[in-house]
Amino acid sequence: MTFASMWADLLPIGRDAATGGYHRFAWTPPELECRAWFLDEARRRGMDVERDANGNLFAWWHPEGAASQGAGSQDPGSQDAASGGAVLTGSHLDSVPGGGAFDGPLGVVSAFAAVDAMRERGVRLRRPIVVGAFAEEEGARFGVACLGSRLLTGAIDPARARALTDGDGRTFAEVAAENGLDPDAVGPDEGLLGRIGCHVELHVEQGRALAEPVGVASSIIPHGRWRFGFTGAGDHAGTTRLADRRDPMLPFAGMVLAAREAAERNGTVATVGKVRVVPGGVNAIASSVTAWLDARGPEDDAVRRTVAEVGEAARTAARPHRVAVDVAEESYTEVVDFNLALRDRIGAILGGVPVLPTGAGHDAGVLASRMPAAMLFVRNPTGISHAPAEHADTADCLAGVEALTAVLTGLACG
Amino acid sequence: MTFASMWADLLPIGRDAATGGYHRFAWTPPELECRAWFLDEARRRGMDVERDANGNLFAWWHPEGAASQGAGSQDPGSQDAASGGAVLTGSHLDSVPGGGAFDGPLGVVSAFAAVDAMRERGVRLRRPIVVGAFAEEEGARFGVACLGSRLLTGAIDPARARALTDGDGRTFAEVAAENGLDPDAVGPDEGLLGRIGCHVELHVEQGRALAEPVGVASSIIPHGRWRFGFTGAGDHAGTTRLADRRDPMLPFAGMVLAAREAAERNGTVATVGKVRVVPGGVNAIASSVTAWLDARGPEDDAVRRTVAEVGEAARTAARPHRVAVDVAEESYTEVVDFNLALRDRIGAILGGVPVLPTGAGHDAGVLASRMPAAMLFVRNPTGISHAPAEHADTADCLAGVEALTAVLTGLACG
Repeated sequence: MTFASMWADLLPIGRDAATGGYHRFAWTPPELECRAWFLDEARRRGMDVERDANGNLFAWWHPEGAASQGAGSQDPGSQDAASGGAVLTGSHLDSVPGGGAFDGPLGVVSAFAAVDAMRERGVRLRRPIVVGAFAEEEGARFGVACLGSRLLTGAIDPARARALTDGDGRTFAEVAAENGLDPDAVGPDEGLLGRIGCHVELHVEQGRALAEPVGVASSIIPHGRWRFGFTGAGDHAGTTRLADRRDPMLPFAGMVLAAREAAERNGTVATVGKVRVVPGGVNAIASSVTAWLDARGPEDDAVRRTVAEVGEAARTAARPHRVAVDVAEESYTEVVDFNLALRDRIGAILGGVPVLPTGAGHDAGVLASRMPAAMLFVRNPTGISHAPAEHADTADCLAGVEALTAVLTGLACG
Repeated sequence: MTFASMWADLLPIGRDAATGGYHRFAWTPPELECRAWFLDEARRRGMDVERDANGNLFAWWHPEGAASQGAGSQDPGSQDAASGGAVLTGSHLDSVPGGGAFDGPLGVVSAFAAVDAMRERGVRLRRPIVVGAFAEEEGARFGVACLGSRLLTGAIDPARARALTDGDGRTFAEVAAENGLDPDAVGPDEGLLGRIGCHVELHVEQGRALAEPVGVASSIIPHGRWRFGFTGAGDHAGTTRLADRRDPMLPFAGMVLAAREAAERNGTVATVGKVRVVPGGVNAIASSVTAWLDARGPEDDAVRRTVAEVGEAARTAARPHRVAVDVAEESYTEVVDFNLALRDRIGAILGGVPVLPTGAGHDAGVLASRMPAAMLFVRNPTGISHAPAEHADTADCLAGVEALTAVLTGLACG
């Protein structure tokens, strides 16, 4: 299987024919089809597949003569990039609503392609290679991004994860159980973490900052999601006097504009991309509006200040309309600086590639709290991501595979 | 069947157990259950049921000895309230999303209860009584309010109606065909209109303007719906610089605030209660936002001015964000003054009840273009409507039945 044929197999899964956007939400039929594809690719290469208690998938390629459970069970704290434990690569297969083809799958396909290239070149592994596909990276179904890697590393309380609900009100625990997971067993897996030495995730770049085919991540900027609930009173759109209204749509609109202004003031970005209006009738004043704020910035303080200012603006806008405002933090990740030693080693292997920060969250950022982690970026000519127009040129994708092959060879065979 | 038992039969159909709100959209299972209830009630009373080509239901009670097709086929233009043709009463059985129990069903239940009361009193009909239930009065499924009565009277082009789509993209033509209607036959029915002499719709009042149990409508104020489309460019919420964004959420928010300001300026009401965001992901800048504006006011000019000002504000807000704005009128109804002679006659029968305008659209307002039409309102103590809290006291409902009984007796037996 070449890169091109793997890519072609994934391309039609979950794609909306009208918009070209992908809808691959965790444990929905298109995402399950992507998982089946992953199992096929692993089996085709004779790799052992391990599904952890959180629904993350791992395909293992062991050094010749090694025990099938990898390099043994070192103390998880003792791993470093240079020795011991498996080298994890891969990314995720789920998408945002109407997302692009590259965000996630590019890293998984490139990982399998790098395994193929290493085998063709007859490398001798000293450490296992693991191709991973993490569950619910986008948080598009249950609202918390990187849910699979957060559970694995203990970055989210399993009880909180179990109670998360999707848009139909179904809990993560219900959906996990339906998909053969034990909801009571979700959570950190020290045994598995102990068998992994470091992680290198390849991903399409999501801005226009990368002018060469491949780059290396320096850091993930602070980012988080906040849910704003506006509760007013539903009523008839035609018969209710303006003065009698408690319309939550009005302070919600004020909050959208305040988010942009706060971002400009604080040098951050802030976005409202998801809204739920109840009941949602043309001729009915809404009873409640729920809106999600995504905020990110180069510094924790600036992001915190942005969110606080938006919250204050929302409350100020709500008061004259007698609308209640409730702000809840759904997730927040402080700045992640990727491991400097691993990044230097990758730089040495690749010979002087650009180093850049990213505004996007990734599983590698979550895993970075437990092991040396790094990211390779593949150039995105338009910078567009999370949309059908997301793109990377084939030549750049192949350059990414070549870079990943070199990095994995250096780390696992050196 | 008493008023109370009919009411109890309808009460659980399509009610959301969590919110208490009703979801009875045209030709969905709960609304079909309401239609089945209507047929049962008609049969129980030996009334002939006629479903017209547009899916409206009519249950006929003929004068003794009259032909089963009613009072014959007068020239439709020659009808007046005092003579000739059937007396139509009733309302509708569909609801807005999360609507109340009274809006619509109160008029249908009261109509059957009035028939029972007239029979108990042994009245002799000189004109037929028809209990009607009009289809898609709220426009909650296909977007055009009073769709059934508009089709019957020719107030909407049948080709336009056929092409209307619901939230799942299904056309009215498809749904009509599935429900045993011939999509090519929808449209005005002069034969049926010619058999009806006048219409009296009883409805729960939808504001707080009625201080007595029962009132009579003077007019329906001008009202309409406009669809605002905002088209920008979808992108990643974390990696796209503010300056590079074409975020349609921002001018949409500006439009919501502008609608309130324009309504205050022009003495109208304007409401945004329904919004669709594509793709709707927390971490994605929206590519498009569609919002519906409901605007009403005492005068056509003021409503038109309100909508024009909101459109201008939307375009102004959109320009710096390079977002395209498209405004489409979905429906507009000029002021409807109910027939003065019929209103006076009802006033004489009831002996001095309050007369009041309404800000809500009704099938009676559509039928008013083709026959003398009138409305009776039943007091709403909170004024809340299109929401679960919509309410009328039982004593007021029974006063409404008594008033409707008197009016129908006066019109059909006098």
